[in-house]
Amino acid sequence: MKKSFLLSVVFGLMGTAVLAGQEKFPVESYEELPQFVKPDAKEWESVKGTRISWGSTHERYAKTSVPMKNLSRLQGISGWRGEKVAAQAVVWSRDGLEELSFEISDFKGPKGQVIPSGQFEAGFVRYVMADEVRKDGNCGSREDRSLFDSTMVADCIDPYLKTAALAPMNTMPVWISCRIPQDIAPGTYKGKVIFKDGERTVGALDLNILADSHVLPEPSQWHFHLDLWQNPYAVARYYQVPVWSREHLEAMRPMMERLASAGQKVITASITHKPWNGQTYDWFESMVTWMKKADGSWAFCFDVFDMWVEFMMSCGIDRQINCYSMVPWSLSFKYFDMTTNTIKSVDSAPGEKAYDEVWTCLLKAFASHLKEKGWFDICTIAMDERPAEVMQKALNVIKKADPDFKVSLAGNYHPEIEDQLYDYCITINENFPEDVLERRRSEGRISTLYTCCAEGYPNTFTLSPLAEATWIPLYAAAKNVDGYLRWAFNSWTREPLLDSRFRTWAAGDTFLIYPGNRSSMRFEKLIEGIQAYEKIRILRNECRNGKDTGKTAQLEDALASLRIADLAETPASIAVDKIMVILKN
Amino acid sequence: MKKSFLLSVVFGLMGTAVLAGQEKFPVESYEELPQFVKPDAKEWESVKGTRISWGSTHERYAKTSVPMKNLSRLQGISGWRGEKVAAQAVVWSRDGLEELSFEISDFKGPKGQVIPSGQFEAGFVRYVMADEVRKDGNCGSREDRSLFDSTMVADCIDPYLKTAALAPMNTMPVWISCRIPQDIAPGTYKGKVIFKDGERTVGALDLNILADSHVLPEPSQWHFHLDLWQNPYAVARYYQVPVWSREHLEAMRPMMERLASAGQKVITASITHKPWNGQTYDWFESMVTWMKKADGSWAFCFDVFDMWVEFMMSCGIDRQINCYSMVPWSLSFKYFDMTTNTIKSVDSAPGEKAYDEVWTCLLKAFASHLKEKGWFDICTIAMDERPAEVMQKALNVIKKADPDFKVSLAGNYHPEIEDQLYDYCITINENFPEDVLERRRSEGRISTLYTCCAEGYPNTFTLSPLAEATWIPLYAAAKNVDGYLRWAFNSWTREPLLDSRFRTWAAGDTFLIYPGNRSSMRFEKLIEGIQAYEKIRILRNECRNGKDTGKTAQLEDALASLRIADLAETPASIAVDKIMVILKN
Repeated sequence: MKKSFLLSVVFGLMGTAVLAGQEKFPVESYEELPQFVKPDAKEWESVKGTRISWGSTHERYAKTSVPMKNLSRLQGISGWRGEKVAAQAVVWSRDGLEELSFEISDFKGPKGQVIPSGQFEAGFVRYVMADEVRKDGNCGSREDRSLFDSTMVADCIDPYLKTAALAPMNTMPVWISCRIPQDIAPGTYKGKVIFKDGERTVGALDLNILADSHVLPEPSQWHFHLDLWQNPYAVARYYQVPVWSREHLEAMRPMMERLASAGQKVITASITHKPWNGQTYDWFESMVTWMKKADGSWAFCFDVFDMWVEFMMSCGIDRQINCYSMVPWSLSFKYFDMTTNTIKSVDSAPGEKAYDEVWTCLLKAFASHLKEKGWFDICTIAMDERPAEVMQKALNVIKKADPDFKVSLAGNYHPEIEDQLYDYCITINENFPEDVLERRRSEGRISTLYTCCAEGYPNTFTLSPLAEATWIPLYAAAKNVDGYLRWAFNSWTREPLLDSRFRTWAAGDTFLIYPGNRSSMRFEKLIEGIQAYEKIRILRNECRNGKDTGKTAQLEDALASLRIADLAETPASIAVDKIMVILKN
Repeated sequence: MKKSFLLSVVFGLMGTAVLAGQEKFPVESYEELPQFVKPDAKEWESVKGTRISWGSTHERYAKTSVPMKNLSRLQGISGWRGEKVAAQAVVWSRDGLEELSFEISDFKGPKGQVIPSGQFEAGFVRYVMADEVRKDGNCGSREDRSLFDSTMVADCIDPYLKTAALAPMNTMPVWISCRIPQDIAPGTYKGKVIFKDGERTVGALDLNILADSHVLPEPSQWHFHLDLWQNPYAVARYYQVPVWSREHLEAMRPMMERLASAGQKVITASITHKPWNGQTYDWFESMVTWMKKADGSWAFCFDVFDMWVEFMMSCGIDRQINCYSMVPWSLSFKYFDMTTNTIKSVDSAPGEKAYDEVWTCLLKAFASHLKEKGWFDICTIAMDERPAEVMQKALNVIKKADPDFKVSLAGNYHPEIEDQLYDYCITINENFPEDVLERRRSEGRISTLYTCCAEGYPNTFTLSPLAEATWIPLYAAAKNVDGYLRWAFNSWTREPLLDSRFRTWAAGDTFLIYPGNRSSMRFEKLIEGIQAYEKIRILRNECRNGKDTGKTAQLEDALASLRIADLAETPASIAVDKIMVILKN
């Protein structure tokens, strides 16, 4: 599959074309990059007419191959009432179709009850450029495209595309999901998906949805501590709207509501310029305005921060605000110098006079502002991994400014500062000591796991096996931690709909959602895992309350057998399916 | 004298050397650029030993020529008590001197009274690079050095240089000035200047100072409206001190006190970024901080403006504050955008919505601030020449913001807006209609004249005849206007002590004072003219009060005969001397 070079050239041209003359980046409709693996006519020889089948949601079906894996005529999917369930259909044809479309029927269940077709969210699955995941934990540069194979991969679920031309010897997946209403009767709901070419029906697939008697609470009630970092700056750039304008907020709203409905708990706020040194295509600006007055004193304005927090809360994300970062990688803090009307910077490290002075001023002003807003108790001063002595010095400054400030860290496990961290997220390959975890829970502290570029698996890269996204929350349940953090919900690449690769890290590392509020198969599979985590939590509670159906012991056994190392050899789907079967029964 | 090319090369090298490694620009001691006109041995053949003589303050004696003009053994200078008087001595030698120095004695007068030597300000005259004045009024670029002849010219008066080596066949002028104490007895004060080479006395020159019975008031009481624009940014850059730091103010203080003692009335304040489009080597930053808040409203901070005004007032310049500019040449107004933490600009012209909005906000806030400070009545919103309709639109915005705002303009005479201008300065080649001038005076308005690059003569370029600087205030007296404006007191070139040329305009256009608070012969000659203006004013008053000594009619005749056009043929010194003789008698 060494076609990377060719692809880079193709992409290079396309990418340039899209931006020429400052045209808008596509939102509603777009053309994918060309498939560079051409269909093998021999493989397609035996395919008669147009074929339609259910596939598996674990699979990314290749565009130019005949789908083979996990096909079935009848699909039965089950879930708790309130749960979002999904199915994937595939359509393929030797001769192609001019105008493929699909329709979802109403689903009829017991006692004349119906899940109306409007309850479904569905879309053709689109293909995006991705480069291979490196399993060795190396996070380095990917500017030299010849070092990594690239491929077009199914990932984006596109509800805008109502009809699609299917080229000869091509496959078209369709992703169909449905949040089972909480208030319908348990039982089986039967419906179908009808496929058409223009006006002509080319086939239909039956679908049974089994609604369990259990009810999954609203996402806002989920306990799973989901922390996918949001990047408002990427949205402003992609939509070409002024940052923090009304249009900007409008563009973000559906995406952030989607994030809320996945159970997101945390608002990502930047309180310094480039808290992550501009590592993303769209770097983060400070939501706190830093200004130095002519008399040398500091002034801070929180208007943008307030606007962002209030906006996010209006989208349903209102449990926690994590503020990055007192220890940005560059330790250079930009501010507006009112004396010279220029942007300057304080270049100083924790423990140094200039650092401690400006941060003490900022944190005192910030604490007072947060208290006025009633947000002090849900706000944390958030850090990424830094040397322990640097973090300890930063912690000293925080405590001096206000001893009640909460602190977050996403980093390695450091026992010496653990007790100072309210929200502590460690890498998935580490473990909190059991007694620490227990104590943290009893103190109301949050303990979670993260993956980033360093973890070849499990992960949520564009080319990660889809089931790994589901596997992660199950692992969190097994480890008894509170949730999962990933550093990028939407730190988009330049043209994420076309190319999910970035100059660093494996493709897809930087985002889980596409422009136009398009979900990804990865994101949907993560939600599946989060829902399973919630179900396990509820079942564990029922067990503690003596309502055990015998299922819990089975479940705990299956969870206890989850091993990261096993993923090197055994697809995550095996372990995931095993647990899902237990949950279903 | 076509040596420009050579000189540019020499200067190029020197200039670079001075800045290499961010060395400091010289303040206390420095080496001049080399003289490129070599002495003519034949001319010097007849010069025996070291020669010393009084010269004339009208003359710039060449470094490598035998001084010939206006030499005298005894110099008598006269002035009113309180007046600053000056003399110029010249020392020249065929064989050179190793360590030339001079000493000024106490000056003994009637009734045992003394003008102590400490009352004198004196210094060797230094040579600076200058290019020729263009008489055609063309203000264009001088980047092509081959278009203008350059020469080293005597201008800077250097009190730091206590001993000087005089090269063989070189001339060294010495400038000596003295403010005659107001409280000494009228009469003749006799003293001398002794010249030494190391410890050896090489000669002495007698000097008589005749103190008139008249008393010239303190410069702060002078009526002459002197408006030389100050550039604090040039000082910060040259002294390599942070702008508006304590060191910056300390560096400016002696220069601004010198300016105050020349009768300066106006504080030059910049309220926009680059009010003159960065035309000077050091452009002006806004002393008002412009900020736009996240809700779209404007915020202005006047801390720097206040600091500057208070500093200037502490230097003795406190009559007026001129604020530039609502109509800068680029009509682009920079501000700090608090939403994005970036510097942005409003690009809008008078009459447009964005312009009117931001200026109405600024002017209202400014008026309120000025009133709080008690400065509203001495503050003007100041403009340079712009098309009349543009100025009228700006005036409309000013009047809307606060109808009592005073307005200044330095530009052509526009009868249609004249009555809206409190401080109106027109070019020296124009005239206010006599009735307008009279009315303006009766209304307490200020009417002055200016010269800039466009006036070949009279002017104060490094190569302008020195007497022109004196001629200008006399002409103002003749025209019955209130004073004189020049746009640059200290908009220094990169290394003004070495080279007074600039990329535009004739050399010396951009400054009248040198780093280290060194005065120039031009500036001293201007002061001489300003003092004459004050004396004329006082004599006219005396005449009106019946104390006419017969001198006034003579004076008015001489003043009435001043014609700019005559300067093309007849040196200004002739007319100046004629008037000075009348004033003396």
